[in-house]
Amino acid sequence: MFQSFNPTPRTLMGPGPSDVNPRILSAMGRPTIGHLDPEFIRMMDEIKALLQFAFQTKNELTIPVSAPGSAGMETCFVNLVEPGDKVIICQNGVFGSRMADNVKRLGGSSVIVEDEWGRAVDPSKLEAALKAHGDAKIVAFVHAETSTGVRSDAASLCALAQKYDCLTIVDCVTSLGGCDVNLDAWGADAAYSGTQKCLSCAPGLSPLSFSERAVAAVKNRKTPVSSWFMDLNLVMGYWGEGQTRAYHHTAPVNALYGLHEALVVLAEEGLEASWARHDRNHQALRAGVEALGLSFIVPEDERLAQLNAITIPEGVDEATIRRELLNQFNLEIGAGLGSLAGKVWRVGLMGYASNPRNVLLCVTALEAVLSQYNAHINRGAAIPAINQAYT
Amino acid sequence: MFQSFNPTPRTLMGPGPSDVNPRILSAMGRPTIGHLDPEFIRMMDEIKALLQFAFQTKNELTIPVSAPGSAGMETCFVNLVEPGDKVIICQNGVFGSRMADNVKRLGGSSVIVEDEWGRAVDPSKLEAALKAHGDAKIVAFVHAETSTGVRSDAASLCALAQKYDCLTIVDCVTSLGGCDVNLDAWGADAAYSGTQKCLSCAPGLSPLSFSERAVAAVKNRKTPVSSWFMDLNLVMGYWGEGQTRAYHHTAPVNALYGLHEALVVLAEEGLEASWARHDRNHQALRAGVEALGLSFIVPEDERLAQLNAITIPEGVDEATIRRELLNQFNLEIGAGLGSLAGKVWRVGLMGYASNPRNVLLCVTALEAVLSQYNAHINRGAAIPAINQAYT
Repeated sequence: MFQSFNPTPRTLMGPGPSDVNPRILSAMGRPTIGHLDPEFIRMMDEIKALLQFAFQTKNELTIPVSAPGSAGMETCFVNLVEPGDKVIICQNGVFGSRMADNVKRLGGSSVIVEDEWGRAVDPSKLEAALKAHGDAKIVAFVHAETSTGVRSDAASLCALAQKYDCLTIVDCVTSLGGCDVNLDAWGADAAYSGTQKCLSCAPGLSPLSFSERAVAAVKNRKTPVSSWFMDLNLVMGYWGEGQTRAYHHTAPVNALYGLHEALVVLAEEGLEASWARHDRNHQALRAGVEALGLSFIVPEDERLAQLNAITIPEGVDEATIRRELLNQFNLEIGAGLGSLAGKVWRVGLMGYASNPRNVLLCVTALEAVLSQYNAHINRGAAIPAINQAYT
Repeated sequence: MFQSFNPTPRTLMGPGPSDVNPRILSAMGRPTIGHLDPEFIRMMDEIKALLQFAFQTKNELTIPVSAPGSAGMETCFVNLVEPGDKVIICQNGVFGSRMADNVKRLGGSSVIVEDEWGRAVDPSKLEAALKAHGDAKIVAFVHAETSTGVRSDAASLCALAQKYDCLTIVDCVTSLGGCDVNLDAWGADAAYSGTQKCLSCAPGLSPLSFSERAVAAVKNRKTPVSSWFMDLNLVMGYWGEGQTRAYHHTAPVNALYGLHEALVVLAEEGLEASWARHDRNHQALRAGVEALGLSFIVPEDERLAQLNAITIPEGVDEATIRRELLNQFNLEIGAGLGSLAGKVWRVGLMGYASNPRNVLLCVTALEAVLSQYNAHINRGAAIPAINQAYT
């Protein structure tokens, strides 16, 4: 017979899920109430307001999609792309190619603007594509590439798209809460995120925000949205104001308790304080990692604080090291994806997981395990470097 | 500033979510681990095996969709329906029309076989439609209509579909765990359910099962599946065996802890014992409700034990009564939907919520509140009737 599942507590420093704040775990275990209960509806309204705060937007349509981040991505594409539409996709990692796959399934065509994995999107390449494709309707890009640890300049890319009269779709999965996401200042039209990164919540929901211009585009479609579940015309009715709320699907009640608590935690800390904390712990991690003799693949001014792609010492089997970190220290870090598979580890310092204890644990556990496998690293230098970084 | 959300504990006797077993709430609050953690992957395998047990099937593709039941419905349609396909939909409540909406968005056409709301699907009408539409590819119907409290004869309907060489899509949202669901005995091809009904879990996931024939249909499609998130060609890779697992989306880890625990609870009780419990408590509720002078809208042999559509005394504002049940007794029951709005209450006795305490609470709270509003009911007769039913 099957037994209850009692997971071994881990320290989650991969690309997500990241460590979940115990306040949030506790919130998810609170008694389920009805999705039409007046108390629940008030909580939904608070989530909308808190997401507006987190995204720095006044967009009315700012809600969590009741499914993981990849469904948030698809919600943007399925609502904005119609058959025959042309979408310019800036691709500098895994998630750009997923965007192109979405477009293709919807009968649209993609123009791919490629940048090297590990580098930011180059705005001049986007502008060249916009000039060459005057009929493009949408520009899509990833603000914080989880597969490489790169931050692109969302403000510049959105400004270019606007200049050429394109809507923008911005992937904020790994950026929301961890670095400056300001939809209104950028003039972004559609953005989505995930709960399991810098919001420190369990995976399963996708915060989403649509500008008035994007909402108008959805309302004025020539063809119906191919998905019933993701059709924002219906979802808007469900997340509408107070009594006008129309039943669409049954909300994931306890997951929303978790997201609400995560956003309250973020509001208590403040956005700027959260970003500064992410930076501080990133600098300490960097000091420790470089003291070991490892390096970062992303140029300094394009690095994400919350996702660190670091090199693997020569002659080391990267999967073995990750397995030993998990077995010996209950520490999870991430492997490389796509063209970076086998070439980097991805170390997350996201949300609640971005703290000095985790920095120290990760660097010293790496030193311990790499030493066991006789890797060429500098020993004994990491702790002083971390101390120095925090001083 | 916003505060943590602490919901008032309710007794959930509406159409779902139903009361969540505290064991399941506690499971959802356990520490989040990575979605690629070996422990998590073992748990995924257990969930597959436990869902096969619950659905009574050997179908290899038996998994939870990472989104609510309506996404489970859409996963069935988006994978099996191609543009131009004809689908026969048996409609005897709200959820049949949602199926037709799905088909339309996918470029298919629907043939609607209509039955009265509150009555089971009539197999002879289905057979007439199958004869008239020899080119139909799929038959879709709802096993347990949540909007009316009706159970249809899934075995007969699936047998008819097979006779005319159609695939079947069966909505088991409200039936799974509460009454006999036996996909292999029925010969059903695609079935989906929800977690928030008779599995007593929080809403947010949709158990799904596809037969070999249905999987072959997905693999042999002429056109790509329009949804990336719901494309079972990709999802199968994610839920595949052990090391072949390909990253698709980030699993909703803590929601899956809850589903795992719910299925362990069901396995501990046993399927037949669970169905018998649902019947026993339904009979007691019925005795109490009829003693008050209210009646059931569904003929006895078509009634669901887990969802009871009962009449409203004349001259009573049904919404007021529901509000007072919630305010005075923290008891939630459901309103009517669609053509039954204002005509019935829907009382759920689902999963963990199907117990004598809830039966007694619901009937006596109804008596108390209806008395306050001077409704014409029989007073003092309910408790003896409930006692009698349990004897």
